[in-house]
Amino acid sequence: MPEYSVPRRVAAEALGTAFLVATVVGSGIMAETLTPDKAVALLGNTLPTGAILVVLITILAPISGAHFNPAVTLVFTVLRQLPMSLAGLYIVAQTLGGIAGTVTAHAMFGQSFVQASTHIRTGGAQWFSEGVATFGLVAVILAGVRFERKAVPWLVGLYITAAYWFTASTSFANPAVAVARSLSNTFSGIRPADLPGFIVAELAGALVAAGTMSWLLSPASTVAHTERAAP
Amino acid sequence: MPEYSVPRRVAAEALGTAFLVATVVGSGIMAETLTPDKAVALLGNTLPTGAILVVLITILAPISGAHFNPAVTLVFTVLRQLPMSLAGLYIVAQTLGGIAGTVTAHAMFGQSFVQASTHIRTGGAQWFSEGVATFGLVAVILAGVRFERKAVPWLVGLYITAAYWFTASTSFANPAVAVARSLSNTFSGIRPADLPGFIVAELAGALVAAGTMSWLLSPASTVAHTERAAP
Amino acid sequence: MPEYSVPRRVAAEALGTAFLVATVVGSGIMAETLTPDKAVALLGNTLPTGAILVVLITILAPISGAHFNPAVTLVFTVLRQLPMSLAGLYIVAQTLGGIAGTVTAHAMFGQSFVQASTHIRTGGAQWFSEGVATFGLVAVILAGVRFERKAVPWLVGLYITAAYWFTASTSFANPAVAVARSLSNTFSGIRPADLPGFIVAELAGALVAAGTMSWLLSPASTVAHTERAAP
Amino acid sequence: MPEYSVPRRVAAEALGTAFLVATVVGSGIMAETLTPDKAVALLGNTLPTGAILVVLITILAPISGAHFNPAVTLVFTVLRQLPMSLAGLYIVAQTLGGIAGTVTAHAMFGQSFVQASTHIRTGGAQWFSEGVATFGLVAVILAGVRFERKAVPWLVGLYITAAYWFTASTSFANPAVAVARSLSNTFSGIRPADLPGFIVAELAGALVAAGTMSWLLSPASTVAHTERAAP
Repeated sequence: MPEYSVPRRVAAEALGTAFLVATVVGSGIMAETLTPDKAVALLGNTLPTGAILVVLITILAPISGAHFNPAVTLVFTVLRQLPMSLAGLYIVAQTLGGIAGTVTAHAMFGQSFVQASTHIRTGGAQWFSEGVATFGLVAVILAGVRFERKAVPWLVGLYITAAYWFTASTSFANPAVAVARSLSNTFSGIRPADLPGFIVAELAGALVAAGTMSWLLSPASTVAHTERAAP
Repeated sequence: MPEYSVPRRVAAEALGTAFLVATVVGSGIMAETLTPDKAVALLGNTLPTGAILVVLITILAPISGAHFNPAVTLVFTVLRQLPMSLAGLYIVAQTLGGIAGTVTAHAMFGQSFVQASTHIRTGGAQWFSEGVATFGLVAVILAGVRFERKAVPWLVGLYITAAYWFTASTSFANPAVAVARSLSNTFSGIRPADLPGFIVAELAGALVAAGTMSWLLSPASTVAHTERAAP
Repeated sequence: MPEYSVPRRVAAEALGTAFLVATVVGSGIMAETLTPDKAVALLGNTLPTGAILVVLITILAPISGAHFNPAVTLVFTVLRQLPMSLAGLYIVAQTLGGIAGTVTAHAMFGQSFVQASTHIRTGGAQWFSEGVATFGLVAVILAGVRFERKAVPWLVGLYITAAYWFTASTSFANPAVAVARSLSNTFSGIRPADLPGFIVAELAGALVAAGTMSWLLSPASTVAHTERAAP
Repeated sequence: MPEYSVPRRVAAEALGTAFLVATVVGSGIMAETLTPDKAVALLGNTLPTGAILVVLITILAPISGAHFNPAVTLVFTVLRQLPMSLAGLYIVAQTLGGIAGTVTAHAMFGQSFVQASTHIRTGGAQWFSEGVATFGLVAVILAGVRFERKAVPWLVGLYITAAYWFTASTSFANPAVAVARSLSNTFSGIRPADLPGFIVAELAGALVAAGTMSWLLSPASTVAHTERAAP
């Protein structure tokens, strides 16, 4: 597989996160405009988000790895699959790209570009939800990369489709997306003051998943091999 | 394909069943909270369940086979594809994992961890539904493994998506999940007293499917081969 | 690929059509019971039907070809890809299997096993809809088999998902399924008196598609080859 | 891969665009007839459109490339992957096919064949939406063709599924489809007077995407190769 230059990799992270956030925020605005039924609105928010994740990861993973998520970038850095210097650039690109996504969504719907969300999302149940959501996301990515790399775009899209519904927080599971959503006072927003709790829970869930999967994914036969190889 | 150790296999069954039940129960709570329309709620329960099944089977099948279901484990044991001792461990792991999934869902939604369901699901039509649902599930798995092993995660996810709607019982089709759902007095619960009827019907459907598919999946050419091989 | 015996092929056609009809009829009953919104009900009828088609075609095509549809069987017979004698058995199996599917759905929902539908579906617009729907179905199958055989289950499932909505008749596109649905006085039923119009339109659409695709799918390079081969 | 003759390629473009528009317009009519909830209606319009795109691109791409869209044809012409003469024929076929699709949908629903839409879609936010929508569509196609050609039908179907919701214009992203939709005074229509704004925005978005992706998709290793090859 060809290597892509750092500017292109960083651009891919920014562009992907921008489209992801534009989809989350934009479909949320569309949905709450069209229906009073909050479950129908969440369906109208879920399907586009799952769908665009499959698309964005498929087309940008060959360039940048398609993290679009500082928690994922952190895990790959901890697992020494991404150099620290590049990780920093990725996280900046994801954050700025995410904000650009919110602004783009607002512009498409004729709203003021930047807003402060008043959507309260805090408390232990919400934080536990974000921890579980990000644990699952990272577990899916690590096992997916190991066993079925070509399916990873689908696995992530389907996992988030499920996690929108099975967590009480609708599964942000992404610090850059959380920051970007704090700038939208619409369906998918989050109050800026509630960001720290979400981000800490997400990073904790990601690191627990990295540890758990490191154990779970070690095959017995490797051990056996090593043992057999010994004299 | 590498072999995984027994503790990892058992952990994969527990983790997978936990995430499956957390999705079923959690999305049920989310759905009934958001809408008065019961069909919209069932959509909000169906899509996450189908989606997470594709994900969980893809990422855990290489480790444990991804049964997450005592009826499936029973069938593979009867077909001598799983040793009896391991089957026992699997079923314990599935049951405990399932209960952990219910507790996790309740914790995410700020509810008391364990509840006794009052959702009545009993009678001949319900039992027949569970029998048909599990017959279909096992038939899909056995034929899928035979003809298109890589598609099995999709086949199971799509089958359950359909079975939520075409059976009167919304297709539990899984004794461990049924037990776990009896501990949640929410959308997806089942009264503990109604468990025996469901479990018997599920196991019966599974065994009928194992017999039916053993016949249906034997190709004529194997017979021909044997006959030609005879002197 | 191994060959399957005639009894197994016929059984596969019956079993597949039974599950298909049980899904169509059963999900229709579930949907209309749960919601007063007819579009939500149609979503709850569409998703299971599309999903089960992907599953059934994947697992039964290696045995029988997975027609489940006399119009499809007719096309393959006309194109000399299925002997006439087998075609007759297929159509009988599809029809009886479909009726068994209706009875199964009714039994699962505690309804009387056989009912006469009073759902009126007649007139030029409905017939034209059925013609277009079956034209499209056969075109999709013939081109899919030619270009991307492994994708055919998905193509048919997705096509029917679309056709439920873009035709005024919700796209029966299948004479055996139409007969089976005439025995259910529920959401997905059709008045027995309206069957002939539907069946004629479906067969006409199928044959037009067979002709059109025979032309469209002939590559220019074959012609060129033949011409080059001439002295 | 065999080559197809020009008449077949042009017929494939016309047939594909006709089915695409019949799906968009037909499912819109079905949806708005069945429900007063506009988000449910949009779901009933989105799912069929996404599904039929996967199907049509899979079965017709081997014949014509499956553009169904003058903006896409323009991009491939600018990138010198399609001769100008053929591009002209494609655009005529797409436009006439699209109109035939509208007429077919109207006939299936018993409506007058051609109507003038009164659905107002104009202004900066709408135009910006169309620009973003078409930028994304072309970016997805160009990167998909580069990295994962077999997945392109899915990528386009999923992208449009998302774009129906995340843009304020429900993402026409296609001048031929826009023209065809101007002839339907139903859910998915557009006032003829609003066509120029949409078409200009779509073509602008497409060209910006072509430029952006030309840069983004150039791998560093190609450059390195060239440099290493130099003496």
